[in-house]
Amino acid sequence: MAQFQSQDLPQLLIIHPSAFFTHFQSELSIKFHILHAGESPLPLDQYLTTYAGSVQAMLCYHATQVNEDLLRLLPALKLVLTCTSGVNHIDVVECRRRGIAIATARSLYSEDVADIGVGLFLDVQRKISAADRYVRQGLWTSKGNYPLGSKLGGGKRVGIVGLGSTGLEVAKRLEAFGCRVSYNSKSKKPSLPYPFYSNVHELEANNDALIICCALTDQTHHMINKEVLSALGREGVIVNVGRGAIVDEKELVRFLVRAEIGGAGLDVFENEPHVPEELFALDNVVLSPHKAVHTTESFQSSNEFMLANLEAFFSNKPLLTPHTEGEEFELVSQV
Amino acid sequence: MAQFQSQDLPQLLIIHPSAFFTHFQSELSIKFHILHAGESPLPLDQYLTTYAGSVQAMLCYHATQVNEDLLRLLPALKLVLTCTSGVNHIDVVECRRRGIAIATARSLYSEDVADIGVGLFLDVQRKISAADRYVRQGLWTSKGNYPLGSKLGGGKRVGIVGLGSTGLEVAKRLEAFGCRVSYNSKSKKPSLPYPFYSNVHELEANNDALIICCALTDQTHHMINKEVLSALGREGVIVNVGRGAIVDEKELVRFLVRAEIGGAGLDVFENEPHVPEELFALDNVVLSPHKAVHTTESFQSSNEFMLANLEAFFSNKPLLTPHTEGEEFELVSQV
Repeated sequence: MAQFQSQDLPQLLIIHPSAFFTHFQSELSIKFHILHAGESPLPLDQYLTTYAGSVQAMLCYHATQVNEDLLRLLPALKLVLTCTSGVNHIDVVECRRRGIAIATARSLYSEDVADIGVGLFLDVQRKISAADRYVRQGLWTSKGNYPLGSKLGGGKRVGIVGLGSTGLEVAKRLEAFGCRVSYNSKSKKPSLPYPFYSNVHELEANNDALIICCALTDQTHHMINKEVLSALGREGVIVNVGRGAIVDEKELVRFLVRAEIGGAGLDVFENEPHVPEELFALDNVVLSPHKAVHTTESFQSSNEFMLANLEAFFSNKPLLTPHTEGEEFELVSQV
Repeated sequence: MAQFQSQDLPQLLIIHPSAFFTHFQSELSIKFHILHAGESPLPLDQYLTTYAGSVQAMLCYHATQVNEDLLRLLPALKLVLTCTSGVNHIDVVECRRRGIAIATARSLYSEDVADIGVGLFLDVQRKISAADRYVRQGLWTSKGNYPLGSKLGGGKRVGIVGLGSTGLEVAKRLEAFGCRVSYNSKSKKPSLPYPFYSNVHELEANNDALIICCALTDQTHHMINKEVLSALGREGVIVNVGRGAIVDEKELVRFLVRAEIGGAGLDVFENEPHVPEELFALDNVVLSPHKAVHTTESFQSSNEFMLANLEAFFSNKPLLTPHTEGEEFELVSQV
């Protein structure tokens, strides 16, 4: 009976399950007939060809590559709803060509992401996780004081790469710690008091640390490369709460292992959930499993925004959060 | 020859070596004849009776109990210079009776301590250290997402115990994260916008977390006891950057082990460097080896303030930072 009723509900395709969806699956199941492609024993293309021919809406996050090949298998698709702020996993051009709408979480997670950005920076500078390991290993008693950290305020210069809503929240927090904030973004924002640098090289040359808050695009892919890391120098710190591939990870690992930069706080990686194992033994890095948005509160808000968008879509009303270019994660200038 | 010259310099007694002193020992040695009591094979009382009869100045930190027994062995003492902000290791009444001046670091470390206070709070709420362990153990790949954290902003209510210069710096940072701040201190500070609670029970009843920034006094010893912890509840968080004994540590451990409070971020402990081993296996605590003031920058500032006070003392000029009651660590009302 439940099965029969479910068939009458609007179809909603989910390829990769996410904690974001599973947390409110029961709520979703009441209103939609969910096609869990990832749970089928069939190969994905066969599953989609067999069951998803009339699917109009899909729910995804960054694990699902919504590319031309996938879209071709979904001829009736009219909505890609991603619970992420970034859209680097979605072929936006192909969606536009096909008339497929995209809805994103926009700036829903900005505060949570900024909290982790500043938290990782604070942790690297003041060695919080490393000192916690030290205490747990009983070394405080046997070896004495833990090595000194570095003060956040008193003029520490922090460059924000991408001053969108996340970058702005990061800036607000850093100011309270007494840091000197500057930024790079696609264009100068005249209403803001922070110095603007037109490219990441100038930003890095004028700062002690960089916090990456920008979108992953063709322009930002491997933007933080050997040259940038080298210029940042032995005391320099990188924090990444954008996307892993903005940083050339192999180079970053080399610089960290050789202590040729001061440290890194990383919430994102090039090939998640794979994290380069060379980093596991280092005390100058803090590793976070892409969880900057993972709070009870953000999951609740996310559920609400996803349901509201789906209900709008199936009632032929305007989407609440249609994708527009450069929103949560600010686009930065080409380098 | 160097030995002969050293004897002509003013004597300076150090009983327990500290990283704060050793970092600038060469500078100190040029200007003072240092008596390293702790490095002598003699028992302390015998060393002091033999060598320290004419010592006028001593340099200490919280490891040295400057009590009546010790002071009795130092008949010529005129200055206790502590590189700490707190004076709970010094018998202030006996010093006053004897006419011994006390100089402290006052609010020199307020920003650094506040950074660790907020850093520990952020870490506990967003599970930064615990998630770093998870990644390093390879569990992200094998077990998937790390459990959700709790958002800092959006109305999280944080009570500051002791709104001195450290507490004020904590408040400033928390506001930037979107927390709602209130406080307890000896008296209401009418110029501040934060709600005031006249005792720690009212503070705890109206908050989701407490950050302890007060001095250790007879009144604050074990102020955070079973009743306070119980009232704080299963989601409640304690951060301590004051002194270990402000919290009844045995009770705190019990509450943490049974998950009867949400978590704790601890920079200070009752019997340092001993940390209760039951805490080592817990993911809801962050352990920091009393290093809130340990930055390169604070050590430099500390060296400067210690030298300046010593030079003033030996030139019969006024001390730069004589001890006054309730300075960096605010005194809180009796509970």
